[in-house]
Amino acid sequence: MATIKEIADRLGVSVSTVSKGLNGANDISDALRQTILDTAVEMGYTTKRMKKEGHKKLCIFVENIGHETKNHFGYDIVLGFKQSAYRDKWDVTVLSIDADFQLQEKYDTYMLKNGYSGAFALGFALSDNWMQQFKTTTIPTVLLDNYIRKNPHVAYVATDSLEGIDSAIEHLALLGHKKIALLSGSTDSMVYNQRRQAYIDSLLNHGLSYQEGLITYCYHDIDSVHEQVATFWAQGATAIICSNDNLASNVINECTRQGYRVPEDISVIGFDDLPISAGLQPPLTTIGQDRIELGKCGYYALSGLINHVSISQTMLRPQFIERASTAPPKIR
Amino acid sequence: MATIKEIADRLGVSVSTVSKGLNGANDISDALRQTILDTAVEMGYTTKRMKKEGHKKLCIFVENIGHETKNHFGYDIVLGFKQSAYRDKWDVTVLSIDADFQLQEKYDTYMLKNGYSGAFALGFALSDNWMQQFKTTTIPTVLLDNYIRKNPHVAYVATDSLEGIDSAIEHLALLGHKKIALLSGSTDSMVYNQRRQAYIDSLLNHGLSYQEGLITYCYHDIDSVHEQVATFWAQGATAIICSNDNLASNVINECTRQGYRVPEDISVIGFDDLPISAGLQPPLTTIGQDRIELGKCGYYALSGLINHVSISQTMLRPQFIERASTAPPKIR
Repeated sequence: MATIKEIADRLGVSVSTVSKGLNGANDISDALRQTILDTAVEMGYTTKRMKKEGHKKLCIFVENIGHETKNHFGYDIVLGFKQSAYRDKWDVTVLSIDADFQLQEKYDTYMLKNGYSGAFALGFALSDNWMQQFKTTTIPTVLLDNYIRKNPHVAYVATDSLEGIDSAIEHLALLGHKKIALLSGSTDSMVYNQRRQAYIDSLLNHGLSYQEGLITYCYHDIDSVHEQVATFWAQGATAIICSNDNLASNVINECTRQGYRVPEDISVIGFDDLPISAGLQPPLTTIGQDRIELGKCGYYALSGLINHVSISQTMLRPQFIERASTAPPKIR
Repeated sequence: MATIKEIADRLGVSVSTVSKGLNGANDISDALRQTILDTAVEMGYTTKRMKKEGHKKLCIFVENIGHETKNHFGYDIVLGFKQSAYRDKWDVTVLSIDADFQLQEKYDTYMLKNGYSGAFALGFALSDNWMQQFKTTTIPTVLLDNYIRKNPHVAYVATDSLEGIDSAIEHLALLGHKKIALLSGSTDSMVYNQRRQAYIDSLLNHGLSYQEGLITYCYHDIDSVHEQVATFWAQGATAIICSNDNLASNVINECTRQGYRVPEDISVIGFDDLPISAGLQPPLTTIGQDRIELGKCGYYALSGLINHVSISQTMLRPQFIERASTAPPKIR
């Protein structure tokens, strides 16, 4: 846990200013106090005052994605959520779970038993047991990247995949690419299915034909990337869009291993803009998600549901980030 | 403008408590202060303290809808927006405009000239001149019921029409209706077009056939309602869904005038749940929109855009409200 001195050093203010911010003193500005609180949360410093003395508890369930380090997809989402929740004096528990966990205990029972007023669920798969229960739960619940119809107690938070994939296709089309492949994540994921559908729709909107052989699926398994890169190449693909940056990173490695240069021989685009992406060789062109804000929107939606506001969805715009992994297609 | 005494009477607290709430004193709870501020805004009482002394100005543009009295569709939306905006010390101007106004002045120019930091636009038509300009504006702008693709400075706020219309069709299908008509508002409106598409999709999802003759359009013109009710009846419709409550009110009047009983001869459903709806004869079954919360979401999204958070959309769930204007179909 960080000390007050470390927070002060990071912000370039005095220890007494940080102390005022943490203790709710009135003689510093609201904006500075919030910055101090946000930084304290980010650095792992929490005072009793920042949490409520009573029993205001929220839970973040994380499945299928990492959140422990800055490089993990979930890290900033959890951070953004906590920063907002602590302002309203909620205590937040982060729990990594798996499919088995959901079979052992009913969602509503688990929430009530542990005194949680609501939850933010990240990375759930379509086949997960709790996904069925979210259809009828009466516990305020916000899902990242999973949408439940008609249940007024459940909200959906996401980055707009359609606009994101469309900006990637547009970029490649303008460069002159005609055969664009998609390396998709698991079909057991709503968000990867959305991105696949967006890829098909967007190809057609840009007057490019859609070939079934140019879509394949991958489960973060480097061996299957090996085959897929070879297949795409054999079918004449000049660019590969990947459902996420980790896949894109594997694809770049595999291309290099097989003797293809990125982007001279083949262009590669990711999705997410993870911290690793700018440091890849070559730096990855990708579709950025503002994950801190996704976390904040998750809290905003959950706070609405807890206060009986029937928020259905909140969506953020993606940001297309052009780096060095894309170039005009090579004539083959 | 209301007095402090009137606010105190409405809330059942003392004049000095209201005064403390308006003046930011520390010895009342945050929740009570917010209630006092919200009530003051609702009753038209604003102090200098509630606005900023400087130049923090937002504008609400209203077109095609009323907002002046509680019965108007726009009233609660404007109120919800103001309640949230005043908490952050924004000054809010409400401006009723028309299509001509938009031809006289460019949107960005108008905003800059008048020192507005952002706008909330209600009721704009697809053919409006500013709708084109919203595609490229760099001014933070939130549109109720109008979606602009890819511009990170513009966000969309709405109630989910698809779920709303689907709950109406489901209700009628369960009652046994097979021939359900739609009286739609202008085709120059994104939201009415969405509701029309939702009607077609939902009919098919419920195994009901869609007949082109059972959709007609209306522009709040009672004479055309006359013809439309006759046409629907001649085609065997046993229920009419209307794009909004004002249309539904006209339809009920016209049915009565033509000698059909609602709901015994024909069922009628509205959209919006305006204050008039519960008092119609018979009380109207309708799809409710939480307009105060729509206004608050509008402010939330605008505040995000102003702070460089690329909110794309925020959507609320509709609430199906069954009253007395629907019943099982009459065998004809």
